Amino acid sequence: MATVRLWTDDEAEKDPAVKTVFDDIRRVRRSGFINNFWRALANDAASLKRTWESLKAIMGGDGPLDPLTRELIYIAVSTAHGCSYCIHSHTAAAKQKGMTEAQHMQLVAIIGMASETNALVTAMGVPVDREFLVGD
Amino acid sequence: MATVRLWTDDEAEKDPAVKTVFDDIRRVRRSGFINNFWRALANDAASLKRTWESLKAIMGGDGPLDPLTRELIYIAVSTAHGCSYCIHSHTAAAKQKGMTEAQHMQLVAIIGMASETNALVTAMGVPVDREFLVGD
Amino acid sequence: MATVRLWTDDEAEKDPAVKTVFDDIRRVRRSGFINNFWRALANDAASLKRTWESLKAIMGGDGPLDPLTRELIYIAVSTAHGCSYCIHSHTAAAKQKGMTEAQHMQLVAIIGMASETNALVTAMGVPVDREFLVGD
Amino acid sequence: MATVRLWTDDEAEKDPAVKTVFDDIRRVRRSGFINNFWRALANDAASLKRTWESLKAIMGGDGPLDPLTRELIYIAVSTAHGCSYCIHSHTAAAKQKGMTEAQHMQLVAIIGMASETNALVTAMGVPVDREFLVGD
Amino acid sequence: MATVRLWTDDEAEKDPAVKTVFDDIRRVRRSGFINNFWRALANDAASLKRTWESLKAIMGGDGPLDPLTRELIYIAVSTAHGCSYCIHSHTAAAKQKGMTEAQHMQLVAIIGMASETNALVTAMGVPVDREFLVGD
Amino acid sequence: MATVRLWTDDEAEKDPAVKTVFDDIRRVRRSGFINNFWRALANDAASLKRTWESLKAIMGGDGPLDPLTRELIYIAVSTAHGCSYCIHSHTAAAKQKGMTEAQHMQLVAIIGMASETNALVTAMGVPVDREFLVGD
Repeated sequence: MATVRLWTDDEAEKDPAVKTVFDDIRRVRRSGFINNFWRALANDAASLKRTWESLKAIMGGDGPLDPLTRELIYIAVSTAHGCSYCIHSHTAAAKQKGMTEAQHMQLVAIIGMASETNALVTAMGVPVDREFLVGD
Repeated sequence: MATVRLWTDDEAEKDPAVKTVFDDIRRVRRSGFINNFWRALANDAASLKRTWESLKAIMGGDGPLDPLTRELIYIAVSTAHGCSYCIHSHTAAAKQKGMTEAQHMQLVAIIGMASETNALVTAMGVPVDREFLVGD
Repeated sequence: MATVRLWTDDEAEKDPAVKTVFDDIRRVRRSGFINNFWRALANDAASLKRTWESLKAIMGGDGPLDPLTRELIYIAVSTAHGCSYCIHSHTAAAKQKGMTEAQHMQLVAIIGMASETNALVTAMGVPVDREFLVGD
Repeated sequence: MATVRLWTDDEAEKDPAVKTVFDDIRRVRRSGFINNFWRALANDAASLKRTWESLKAIMGGDGPLDPLTRELIYIAVSTAHGCSYCIHSHTAAAKQKGMTEAQHMQLVAIIGMASETNALVTAMGVPVDREFLVGD
Repeated sequence: MATVRLWTDDEAEKDPAVKTVFDDIRRVRRSGFINNFWRALANDAASLKRTWESLKAIMGGDGPLDPLTRELIYIAVSTAHGCSYCIHSHTAAAKQKGMTEAQHMQLVAIIGMASETNALVTAMGVPVDREFLVGD
Repeated sequence: MATVRLWTDDEAEKDPAVKTVFDDIRRVRRSGFINNFWRALANDAASLKRTWESLKAIMGGDGPLDPLTRELIYIAVSTAHGCSYCIHSHTAAAKQKGMTEAQHMQLVAIIGMASETNALVTAMGVPVDREFLVGD
């Protein structure tokens, strides 16, 4: 169902810019597996490199939020955008980072609850309380 | 800008069903402050009670995810839905539960990153990798 | 906050294509009031005419769904899209067509409930049951 | 394509909390059929019970809006959120509650029209008319 | 996976209102191919005609924006709405109107970038600069 | 209404990482004006730098799509996401890059049309035509 070609490993091997990113993905993830997202993005080497570097900076390494929490946030956003691929890939990533089934189901419940109150608020046009404003 | 009336404390006092929920919100939150969301929802006492009970069950008490993580997820969903009220109220709640400025900005960065890759995936119609499927 | 100019009645009077549509809106609605949507769309007379004709065909006249039900559907869609203007204008229209406060609040509750289950379904990637398919 | 396991009837039989809800769904709907949504939600018995109770309260029983109108609103929201599963299941429910093909197609047309004007309004940043405000 | 029946050529031949539109689509596009969108919309002849006439007016003929640019905008909107069908059909249309692979990948990158900054802005609740306002 | 502090020029002057980006924005845009988006993002210097570098790479310089077309795409995405700030800032940018009023209104019409057909397609669950698939 893709609107672009998915690059095979053979093709990636022959394009130095793509190969460099694919190699780095494999090195960082300690796995030979390259998922379809990167194989699609390989059609634009500059975009491939930029996206991978941003993802490493934001989702990888140390930071004020732990790696699993970051994945939960990623799943929440992907669900609200209805991106089935992203939900599947980041649910898999979250499980790899230790998400239990109970945590997964609580995440799902929070996403549902937030979606409901978001809609209630929007339908009723609730004005923001003064107490919630920053520096006004 | 509301499409419904926001209930004052005086009005809430006179309606037992609304009063019961407002009292419980104040008790649980240990604060006299009732934000506009509940004042709008008070127009439907059954919905007010159901929503508050669900929120307590999902966002309050112990659970597999800690209270701050739950708020971060709430903010992520609210952002993806463009609900300004919800973003403001849950950012305030997250700060109250200890969210630092660094954590807030990393949350913002993850939401941005996820939104970007969600869009890239959707535009390219990337098919879900077999490796991400559960029980098929 | 508009990104385009809102046409005044004086300006509309001087442009025959715009005037024709404004006159028809007033005739159909039996009111002198032209809301900002049409004053913004007046910047493109062809689009103004096409949109008004479509709206009259879909929302006006007889049809399998009664006029109030059509407005409720309009509000539901506008809420899911977070279009505050549209929620306000169609809530006003629904009230004019007889929507009671109880109906309004049930509408709000349904929109909330649907938004919640939409999110739950998407987060869990629930596959469509065979029983729901048409003609496959 | 699910990210969670779909419970079989055998598994549901062995878990009293899940069995109670499944039994109630069958009783209320007067049908043995349990659709995949509930089989997915069964992974979180508390969420399963809460969601089913809310759905019964909002979509079932008497109320200011008739059952078919409620389903039409549900379909409208589900379409705006792009939830294919929800569109299919509630279109099936609406047909069961008497939705004719003509009503279905008018619903579709209204959803399309509202989506168009929502976008036009948002692109032009149309400010809300004073006349549409409640109690300001 | 459709919720409505897709009309075959035989059925369209027998319904004069549908046949007229199908014939015009074939004439304008200089191709015998009628894609599924129109076969689904054929269930509502008035909607079929109105949608086709609007599409011809907006996407066809001369205008201030060239035909390829219009398709790129169409793809951008369809991606943000997560409409897989629309992304596929308009990506095909854009290719037919001369979109190169490099243009396609730049379009994808812009859609991703815009989605990211949209989310950043929304999460931080950035107020509109005075400099961006029109006529206030 | 912001959830974060907007940095003043004085504050930016004192933080070398922020100052470097603000200086580059002024240099590239040949203007002293720094809009609120960057003043908000300044709360996370790494994110500020990464976002600005990505924006320069995607929206600036030569490329297969001309600068105005890129802005039109940006506006289309921002509209579909309901990001009022982004619509305002990129509409201003598009005007600066030569967008005429007629082009603006055609852009608006296309966004509206695409939103309508996106919704029609989704509501009817139209399956993707074989002819639109790439490399399957």
